Amino acid sequence: MKIAKVGNFSEWYSKILFDAEIVDIRYPVKGMPVYMPWGFRGLDYFFRELEKLLDKNGHDKLLFPVAIPESIFNKEAEHIKGFSDGVLWITHGGETELEDKLVLRPTSETSMYPIFALWVRSHEDMPLKVYQTTTVYRHETKATRPLIRGREIYWNEAHTVHATFEDAAKQVDEAVKIYSEFFAMFGIPFLVIKRPDHDKFPGAEYTYALDTLMPDGRSLQIGTVHHLGEKFARAYSIKYSNENGEKRYANQTSYGISMRGFASVLGVHGDEKGLRLPFVISPVQIVFVPIYAKGNNEEVDGKLRAIYEQLSKSYRCVYDDKNKRPGDKFYYWEMKGVPLRVEAGMRDLSAGKVTLTDRVGNKNVVDIAVLESEIPRAVKEYEKRLFEEARAFFDSHISDADGFRKVQSVYEEKNGFIRTGWCGSMECVERLKEEAFDVLGTERGREGHVRKCVICGKEGKEVIIGKPY
Amino acid sequence: MKIAKVGNFSEWYSKILFDAEIVDIRYPVKGMPVYMPWGFRGLDYFFRELEKLLDKNGHDKLLFPVAIPESIFNKEAEHIKGFSDGVLWITHGGETELEDKLVLRPTSETSMYPIFALWVRSHEDMPLKVYQTTTVYRHETKATRPLIRGREIYWNEAHTVHATFEDAAKQVDEAVKIYSEFFAMFGIPFLVIKRPDHDKFPGAEYTYALDTLMPDGRSLQIGTVHHLGEKFARAYSIKYSNENGEKRYANQTSYGISMRGFASVLGVHGDEKGLRLPFVISPVQIVFVPIYAKGNNEEVDGKLRAIYEQLSKSYRCVYDDKNKRPGDKFYYWEMKGVPLRVEAGMRDLSAGKVTLTDRVGNKNVVDIAVLESEIPRAVKEYEKRLFEEARAFFDSHISDADGFRKVQSVYEEKNGFIRTGWCGSMECVERLKEEAFDVLGTERGREGHVRKCVICGKEGKEVIIGKPY
Repeated sequence: MKIAKVGNFSEWYSKILFDAEIVDIRYPVKGMPVYMPWGFRGLDYFFRELEKLLDKNGHDKLLFPVAIPESIFNKEAEHIKGFSDGVLWITHGGETELEDKLVLRPTSETSMYPIFALWVRSHEDMPLKVYQTTTVYRHETKATRPLIRGREIYWNEAHTVHATFEDAAKQVDEAVKIYSEFFAMFGIPFLVIKRPDHDKFPGAEYTYALDTLMPDGRSLQIGTVHHLGEKFARAYSIKYSNENGEKRYANQTSYGISMRGFASVLGVHGDEKGLRLPFVISPVQIVFVPIYAKGNNEEVDGKLRAIYEQLSKSYRCVYDDKNKRPGDKFYYWEMKGVPLRVEAGMRDLSAGKVTLTDRVGNKNVVDIAVLESEIPRAVKEYEKRLFEEARAFFDSHISDADGFRKVQSVYEEKNGFIRTGWCGSMECVERLKEEAFDVLGTERGREGHVRKCVICGKEGKEVIIGKPY
Repeated sequence: MKIAKVGNFSEWYSKILFDAEIVDIRYPVKGMPVYMPWGFRGLDYFFRELEKLLDKNGHDKLLFPVAIPESIFNKEAEHIKGFSDGVLWITHGGETELEDKLVLRPTSETSMYPIFALWVRSHEDMPLKVYQTTTVYRHETKATRPLIRGREIYWNEAHTVHATFEDAAKQVDEAVKIYSEFFAMFGIPFLVIKRPDHDKFPGAEYTYALDTLMPDGRSLQIGTVHHLGEKFARAYSIKYSNENGEKRYANQTSYGISMRGFASVLGVHGDEKGLRLPFVISPVQIVFVPIYAKGNNEEVDGKLRAIYEQLSKSYRCVYDDKNKRPGDKFYYWEMKGVPLRVEAGMRDLSAGKVTLTDRVGNKNVVDIAVLESEIPRAVKEYEKRLFEEARAFFDSHISDADGFRKVQSVYEEKNGFIRTGWCGSMECVERLKEEAFDVLGTERGREGHVRKCVICGKEGKEVIIGKPY
């Protein structure tokens, strides 16, 4: 690699996706890259961890069809306004034109909710909490970027149904908590921000987003949680009988994390040598590199391979006995982001020792007898350092400024998030957008702070602004 | 339930899919049912076991896009002839007509192989062995049936690239071995059959299929393995340099197992009470049912729940303390197919005992102290009986007959597979098809047996015929 990601992030990102074999962008449909094995395994482990958290919190896993009939898709007016320009249409089966053409789901509210109307009849059927990990589709016309903006989006989306607005609001809080716990596992710092009305999910009452910062200082939305109120329930007739036998419209929430969350892990933690992956999602967790000398390969392999076999029972390990110099192997596996490396030559092995190195540079000579029990400690040490670096970068990129000139000069110096004021008008948002800024919204826990608008100077509320992907 | 599956299989199958909440067929697109949580968890565990086997045998997991440009899709002539009538077309993004319209992949040869041409350059890049677990799409015009024939098919497909025809042939053998091991895990009996030319995969040199029998005696194809030779390599320009630096076309294989494999597990093992699931894929493996008496609920729960918590560390367990009679709970979880049940009242618990029952009716009073260590034995006993029943049914539905009249009368009595002769002509196949029979092909291991054609009486080869789904 040898590219510093700060200052050259775009170049760094493209190069690492190629070198580490995350995606292949040569697939002949715009915005639909191939997920290569290293990338897809990582993505898969990433979403499996999310699924575990959702399972623990009472969600059921299922799968809805990819195709939604136009007549069903068009029922919730605001939602459709938000999506209809940007969807892909299936119009033909073989040579035959379909009577009701089909949308490739851009998100699954409109496929799931007609069926939820059949599943939810009584207050006892709620809460209904389900999720699917699958692909959704957008007819993206802007520039695409692998894992960040594309026409095929791999994600996990959860959908819930509740009796009351309050129950759904509590579910929103639970979802924010789950997502916060999830990203904390990977050391990704974020703000929880309530989106302004013009940027909430089409059809939602309100939307919370988790926003992190990429190394270029631009903000990346890595999770969203929506309170849908009764809007979809009214459009799709999701009604239940309450305890008195009266029919009521249900309240709903939906929330999702896409491949962008995985992109943030790559971007936030990588360095000039390549990726640095959190232990739990790395396709290979420990790489073993034998150090041969004077043709003692068999002897070294005999001893080191036994250790590799033992650790392979608990961890995803690779034994790299390729015909390459150790330094080249180190370089390769560092670039791939593998958290731990065990290396040893005959002298070490005879003394009952190996060298355990992590991807942030901690290096320890360890007794073979205690190596296995050392791994959890080594992982903890590695991730502590990795996550602290990310936190330090993040914290140093949140600033405070008033007035547009000041905001611009602060952003020029520091990028990232800026706390400022906004009057709530779209005119002032449009002015911000001219400079690629956007009002991301109000930080959770800092609602109600009064502050003068960054553009017009009128009284407004404190908001976070930034330059989003 | 209370429906005998033999004699009423179609009715049994529809009812169990609904009652056990496997799929919801009310989704408003023909042939695209919703996979409900119980069904999708089962399907997911099913494919995860297959993925483990593929991983163990050196396959990499990845994911290709769902959409294939028409211009790319059309390159392999035979393949296209086999599929082009039956695909779904994406023609529009928003209001805009796409320049190169897109096929929803009916299978992924044509999406993967142009990219394989970029990945395979030298003989050292092979074997390339990859798989994906995903959905594929067909514009099915025949009657659809959930998990058996539909427009959205959930499956695992593997694709490999090799230097020579022989290497690819060996890979075909490995795949047949992996698939055989896989279905053996679930106690599904099958024949490995080489399909006749008219029924091989479009574009393949030859195809092996694994065929099982459903309870109505019709055969179900649950896995296929294709030797693709150089045909696709020539169409998509997959070339490598051999050790002498000469350019050669690669040889390829592809193989897949779809949701049909899961359907066979449901159909083959179910009984008049409902499903009987193999332990490893059951969404719930052990259900705990407390037997209350005279309001001693708390006391019973206190003791039994502790056991449940302990076993939940190793198994997927449910503690059913719903306000229902024990008999109703038994009935419900039996219908769902849960392999093991632990029940106990205060008298048992005070004596340090619980009752362990399995879904085939074995019942044992077990000391709580040894319950955990008893589980693997109980699973083995349960599956032995379950799998033996399936084997007995299967074996008793393979017959031998010559001459069409005899074949018809044998089939009327016994259904299943019939060993007979076939001259190789399409005329005789057409005659068989008039009666819903088909030539499934030649059993692996029984090639070269000479036998008179069941229709025309001319000399031919031994084949298996049956009535396939």
